[in-house]
Parts: sequence; structure tokens; C-alpha cells
Amino acid sequence: MRRFVIGRGRNFLNRSHQQNLLSSSSSHCQSRFLSSTSVIDSPSSSSMAPTSSPAITVDSLNPKVLKCEYAVRGEIVSIAQILYCNIGNPQSLGQQPITFFREVLALCDHPSILDRSETQGLFSADSIERAWQILDQIPGRATGAYSHSQGIKGLRDTIAAGIEARDGFPADPNDIFLTDGASPAVHMMMQLLIRSENDGILCPIPQYPLYSASIALHGGTLVPYYLDEATGWGLETSEVKKQLEAAKAKGITVRALVVINPGNPTGQVLAEENQRAIVEFCKKEGLVLLADEVYQENVYVPEKKFHSFKKVSRSMGYGEKDISLVSFQSVSKGYYGECGKRGGYMEVTGFSAEVREQIYKVASVNLCSNISGQILASLVMSPPKTLEDAFNSLEGITCNKAEGAMYLFPRIQLPEKAIKAAEAEKTVPDAFYCRRLLNATGIVLVPGSGFGQVPGTWHFRCTILPQEDKIPAIVTRLTDFHKNFMDKFRN
Amino acid sequence: MRRFVIGRGRNFLNRSHQQNLLSSSSSHCQSRFLSSTSVIDSPSSSSMAPTSSPAITVDSLNPKVLKCEYAVRGEIVSIAQILYCNIGNPQSLGQQPITFFREVLALCDHPSILDRSETQGLFSADSIERAWQILDQIPGRATGAYSHSQGIKGLRDTIAAGIEARDGFPADPNDIFLTDGASPAVHMMMQLLIRSENDGILCPIPQYPLYSASIALHGGTLVPYYLDEATGWGLETSEVKKQLEAAKAKGITVRALVVINPGNPTGQVLAEENQRAIVEFCKKEGLVLLADEVYQENVYVPEKKFHSFKKVSRSMGYGEKDISLVSFQSVSKGYYGECGKRGGYMEVTGFSAEVREQIYKVASVNLCSNISGQILASLVMSPPKTLEDAFNSLEGITCNKAEGAMYLFPRIQLPEKAIKAAEAEKTVPDAFYCRRLLNATGIVLVPGSGFGQVPGTWHFRCTILPQEDKIPAIVTRLTDFHKNFMDKFRN
Repeated sequence: MRRFVIGRGRNFLNRSHQQNLLSSSSSHCQSRFLSSTSVIDSPSSSSMAPTSSPAITVDSLNPKVLKCEYAVRGEIVSIAQILYCNIGNPQSLGQQPITFFREVLALCDHPSILDRSETQGLFSADSIERAWQILDQIPGRATGAYSHSQGIKGLRDTIAAGIEARDGFPADPNDIFLTDGASPAVHMMMQLLIRSENDGILCPIPQYPLYSASIALHGGTLVPYYLDEATGWGLETSEVKKQLEAAKAKGITVRALVVINPGNPTGQVLAEENQRAIVEFCKKEGLVLLADEVYQENVYVPEKKFHSFKKVSRSMGYGEKDISLVSFQSVSKGYYGECGKRGGYMEVTGFSAEVREQIYKVASVNLCSNISGQILASLVMSPPKTLEDAFNSLEGITCNKAEGAMYLFPRIQLPEKAIKAAEAEKTVPDAFYCRRLLNATGIVLVPGSGFGQVPGTWHFRCTILPQEDKIPAIVTRLTDFHKNFMDKFRN
Repeated sequence: MRRFVIGRGRNFLNRSHQQNLLSSSSSHCQSRFLSSTSVIDSPSSSSMAPTSSPAITVDSLNPKVLKCEYAVRGEIVSIAQILYCNIGNPQSLGQQPITFFREVLALCDHPSILDRSETQGLFSADSIERAWQILDQIPGRATGAYSHSQGIKGLRDTIAAGIEARDGFPADPNDIFLTDGASPAVHMMMQLLIRSENDGILCPIPQYPLYSASIALHGGTLVPYYLDEATGWGLETSEVKKQLEAAKAKGITVRALVVINPGNPTGQVLAEENQRAIVEFCKKEGLVLLADEVYQENVYVPEKKFHSFKKVSRSMGYGEKDISLVSFQSVSKGYYGECGKRGGYMEVTGFSAEVREQIYKVASVNLCSNISGQILASLVMSPPKTLEDAFNSLEGITCNKAEGAMYLFPRIQLPEKAIKAAEAEKTVPDAFYCRRLLNATGIVLVPGSGFGQVPGTWHFRCTILPQEDKIPAIVTRLTDFHKNFMDKFRN
């Protein structure tokens, strides 16, 4: 996937910094004994003489705000910021945005150019088509209007379809909450789950400091579990269990388990078996599983594959009634790296209708997330097809993944009729196919017979070099040709 | 300003609904006695047998979340949503976005078309120029990168310059915090100021329910003051004072006063004298003045004018040390009505460096606001000039505001030399000016002498009908011509 420059982790805190965080924060923690007679419900005159209220000093600010000091600032601020600026922000380092995504965004920002002839020369046909599709999903095509507080319904349909295609299990657009990046979604869940500092959230250490900051801001307690560096930052449920019990012994009600997969800052990709153990653990302990899956497109090794926790839990036979699961996704990571657009979503499953109503209420207080970010989230979950995807979607064609070099070598099952027709023209069947393709579409492929292949099998070679924004057009033409070819020669 | 369809209020709650809100919320308020031993700082094994944690039920959610029920949902939800969808969301009702703004956004989304020749035909020269200016303000021209957590510095410079031009007092780009609409900025201030339900925020009743929702979510107490319907929803400081004292008598520490000007939902525009009294009151009582000024472009009556609280306080001689003032602005209101773009800012003045550091920290937890919204906020505070603005900026020309019909009738002080040159050509001086303008620029104006004017004064008539996106080009040509004309004929 040469075209996709991959962004790296957002931040990094090493273990000793994290330990500082946890022990330092305890010294900021204050007991609060609050009166219950604090709501003013009717105006009345006071007999007290007016006195000046205290000026706003830092000591008079919300102690929860002060408490989150060590999570994102304080002693480690310079380290955090250096890494923050240089590593988690790919486009600030010169990575160019994906042309298709930006074309669609620009067209949705200024739809009145969609009908202009100059636009055909400036934008790819596929971007224009996708922009129309998206605009048709937006009530009144109004990209400047507040949307539904969960996000535009048509875009949530697209995202749900993308999740289904990824996981092989159904996804419901009503479970999707579009947010300005993943961070506000994390805050929303913390706000809902944390009632006091007696509520705990299990977080990996090392972690991405959004979690410690958000837990502190909402007045809860971070319950750490340590990732095992010796096993490549493995996540052992025995360690999580130990920490859960320790927290309970201290009077903490642990409400949720945060898992970051692929890991930030640790970069590990969890094995499916490991994920099953985590799902089983959360189900048994009644913990909400908060799955930070924003790095799902950032998997670099061929032996590892991303599996969403939703897919894993569904494949274990667990549904809505068995486990409360929130999956966070963002447009800031993956090959797209659109940090500045602030798009993202959470998929919320396994909560009662009453609880979901509360989640919706919190979402509605901020009206909606930004529409460009919403559009981008839908694009990220339904990107234009790659050549490899396209070949694999065609009848009778199978194509291995390109792991290096710059070629695909798909295998094609040619119908008997086509092979006969090739013989009649005194040409080898794969060359017969390629010549007809060239004549019909202008696309040049190299017949596999030029390279050698197991007798009776047919292939062709295709470079993956076409410019990213040309690929959708190539895919369309190839698909149309192939369909006609198969219709004509099908046995 | 025919071209600017004006959006109306965001929401509406009448007085009796608000009273329900306040009295109902008291029944949700629970006393909280929290232990101080709640931070887990080291792992340890537990002797307790594992037990299942409680499932997530609505009763186990954060009571502050449940408490904000009546603010944005509950009994009034249907009323609020009907009005929300139909009144505060102009582009959902078919209002078209301002072309110039959308052209600039589209070009910033997809800058690689800026150099293409087709772009000249599709986009106005002024939009192209502005897009370049904005891209040059963004480090690496990376619109897909996280920005500074307060927003891109160059855009904050533009906004500060816009505030200066509006108020006639200096504005500091370091005081600007760009946010995803005004709502997150309001939440940030509530989060900072509210420590417990013993902290109160003075809010107008009727109010925009963001305030009641945000105060409830952050666990504070809404202290109401009533706007006086009999005096056109006037804001009497005597009423605010009465409520402040009543709150103090109940043990509430009142931390801030919210003023919505122009009012939502009440639509009043405060008189400058009234604003001075409010500033004086906040200064005396040590209250933070939270000025919701998102409707600053929505003033419909000629006898009323918007004055920012910053301008008013500065004109009273009060500076950084005298009053803590936060002004909220949004791209969702005004003639632009770009609700879906989620752009906005707050200007924060009169806080210590330590307090500002805390505000910055809270801003940084969410990384940054969306870049399209940031760009739009800068455009809203530095819109392209209108014809009227343009005429008034020219040497020797004064132009009244067009209040109706479709014309401007600016007065021009022609230099003696020009009048002499006109006489030499046997033409009246205003016609002399208009003919030279036509020849040099192609712009047709009608000399005032054709309509009649006080002898010795010269005018011309200009329609305000040119398409909004053509105006910047007209202004440029007119300005160039006028400058040359005056240079040539100046006495």
C-alpha cells in the first residue's frame, strides 16, 4: 500500500512518568463534604450586607481541573509536547492528505461548483460522484446546518456498512455517535460512568494520557494495569484481575476497562485469543469494555491482523445482552491521518435503552459534531476500493496481497468458452483476456503466460503504481469489462 | 444588506418552563459524602473473592448527567426540538451559505487545485487570494494537522484584528481560544469555575438551555435572575443584585454572571448604559462576566447597535486588572449561520497567568478544534468588505448605510482641480468622475446631478445588487481608480 504513509502514535509516556502521575495525583485529591441544600429555587431579598466575592485565583478553580495537571502538563509537558508535535501529527510532517478524501470534502463545502464543467477537469469523476452521494444523504444538502446530535443518519448508515464489511457482523447506524475526533467520545463515556472518586476505570500503563486526563477531569480514579514489556507489551487478564481486586479492596467500584488496540504508545496488536479472554473477563466482571481502536489501520506486520472487539465478542456468541462495549474510531490515525479535521465516532452496544438515552442527551448538549469531520469519518469507513480489493471482488479472480515490490499477480478462472475462443484466435487464454481488456478500456495488463505459471492456471500482472485518485476510475472500467466478458463467455 | 439572510435564535424556553427546570432539578440533587482514600497507587493482591460488578443501569450513571434532564430534554424536549430544528438552523431552512466563505473553505480543503488554471474560472480571485493567505498562516500549510490547542496562531491574529476593528480597543491573539462552536467554550469555563453545588452561576431567565445543562453537568447551581418583559426583556442590575444576595444567604458562592447580548431567546439588544452598569456590578462583586455575544451580527433595528462588553469595559477605563471577562462568539449565528461547521472562539481577558494556564490545559486535553471551523471563525471576523465599507474607506467619500431599497448614494468631496477639469470639459464634476471611472474600470455609477443634490455637493448612486462574490473585485478596482484619481487631482 505504497500510497498510504502511515502516521504513528499520538503520544508517549514511559512507565516511571506514569507512576509519577498516579502517586502525584493522590496528593491533589481532596475530600469533599457537600451540603445538600444548594439549589436556589426562588428569588428572595437577603438581610446580608453585600460583600465582594473572592477574585478568581488558581486556588479557587475546580480542583478536578487542577488535579489533571500531571496527566498532560506539569513536569512532563515538554517531553509530551515534543513527541506530540513530531510523531502523532503526520500532516504536520509533510504527509499529504489522501486526494480522494480532500476532493470530496472540498466539493461538499462548495457544492455549487458540482454542476460546472470546469469541475470535471479539476476533480476526479469518483469524487464528484461520492460528493453527490453524500450531499443526497444530508437533509436539504445543507452542510452548514446542525445535524442530528449523533451525526447525519446517511453517514451513519455508511459507517455501519463499513463496520459490517470489516467485522462480518451486523452494525446498527443507531449505535453510532459521530464526534469531533475520538477524544470527546471518551470524555462522554467518562462523564456518564464516573460518579465520584470511588468509581474506577481500569487503564493500561503505559497509556495515552487522554485517559488519565479525562478520568481526573471527571473526578474518578484511574486503576492501572501494567502491560508486560517482556511479552511485547502483552495484556494479561491475570494482571487486570489482580488490579481489579486490589481496587475493590480499597472500596473502589470499577466500572470499565480501557483497552487500546493496536496499542498507544506501546504499538502491540492483540492476538484474537487474548481479546477473547478480555471479553470473557469484562462479561464476567460486569465491566464496560472501552475499546480504543483508532489505530485499526496501523498494522505493519503480516502475521498480525486487527480484530475489533465487537467482532471478537460476536464471534464468541455474545450479543447486546451479554457485554457493554464501546468502540472508538478516529479520522486522525490510520493512513489518512486527518488530525485537524476532528472526525471520529463511537459505536455503542450492549446498553439499555435508558442508558442510551442518557448518552444521547449528553451528545445533544453540544448540538452535533462538525460536518466535515462527519463526512471524513464516513469516507474512512468506506474508502474507494484499491486494485487488490477490486480484483478480489470480481467473479473468478483471486488476488494475494502485495507485500512488496509494485505488482499484483491475480489468478483468473477463465470459462471454458473463453479458453476455446482464445484457441480459435490462436492466442493463449490470459493474453486473449488482456487484449480484449485493452481494446475495451485502454488498461494495459501483462498476461501471466509471459512469466510462467502452473499449467492450466491463468494470471495477469498489474502494477499498483497508478495514482491513488485514478484507481477508482480504473476499478470501474475493469469491473464493467470483466462483468461483460464473463457474461459473454460464462459456461 | 440584502445578501445576508439572517438566522434567528437557537432555542426558546418560556419562563414557566424555566421555573420547572429550577424546581425540578432540586429533587434530583443528592448529597454526596465522599471518602478521601480513593486513589490507587500501587498494585496488590486482594484477599477478597471475585464478585461481579453491578451491571450498567441508568441508576448507576453519574447523577450530574441525570440531573441535567430538564435542561435539554424531559417534558420540554419536543418543544425544544421543534424550535431547535426550525429556527436556529438557517441552512436547514434553505438559507444558502456565503459563497466567499465556502470557496475559501473548499480551496483550503484541497489546496492542490490552487495552481490549476480551471480554478480561476471556478473560484473568485479574492477567494483564491484569501485561501493562499490562510494557508500561509498554517504551519506547513497542513490543514489536516493538529493545530496549537488555542487554534492556529495566524488565524487568531486575524480574529484579534477583527475584534480591534470592531471595538476600537486592542485585542491580543493570545487571549483567543478557538473552539468547535461556542458551546465547548462555555463548558470549559463552567468546568473551571464550578467546584461543587455550592458554586453558583447567575443566568438570565429566560436563558439558552446550554447554560442550565452545562451548570448541571458540572455539578454547580444555577442562580436565576429574571429579565423584565415589561421593559422589552431589560436586564436590571437591581434584580441581579437581589438574586446574588439571596444566593449568598443560602451559602452559595456566586462565581460568574452570564449575559446573553443580543438576547437568546428574548431578542433584546442591551443599551450601552445598561452594559456599563453590568460591568460595574461584576467588578464590584468580583464576578467573572461571561458574555455570550454570538448574536453580535443579528441586530435588526437602526436605533440599536451591538457593543461588546470588552469595548464597554475598556471605554470605562477598566483593563486586565479590573474585570475578568470572557466573550463567546460563534460561526453558527449572524448572517453566516454556519451551524454545521462548528467554529467559534472565546476571548479571555482579566485572568492571572496561572488561571490562564489552567484554561489552556483544559483546551489541550481535546488537542484542538476543527481547522475548517477555525478558518471560518477567522473569515467571520474579517469578511470581505461590502460596497458601503469600501466607499467609506475612500478618501473624501462618505456613505450612509442602505436601510432599504437597493441603492447607496455616497457623497464625494471632489478636489478643486477635478472640478476645474470637469468645467474645462464642459461637464458636471460628478459626471466627470463617473465617466473616468467607467473608462478605467468598466464600473457604471449614476452621477448625483441626475437626481438633484444640495448645490456644491457631489454624489453618485450605486446599486448594492452585485453578486456577493463579485463585490471584492469591484471594491479593488474602485479603490485603485479612486486613489489614482485623487493623486492626479488632489489640491
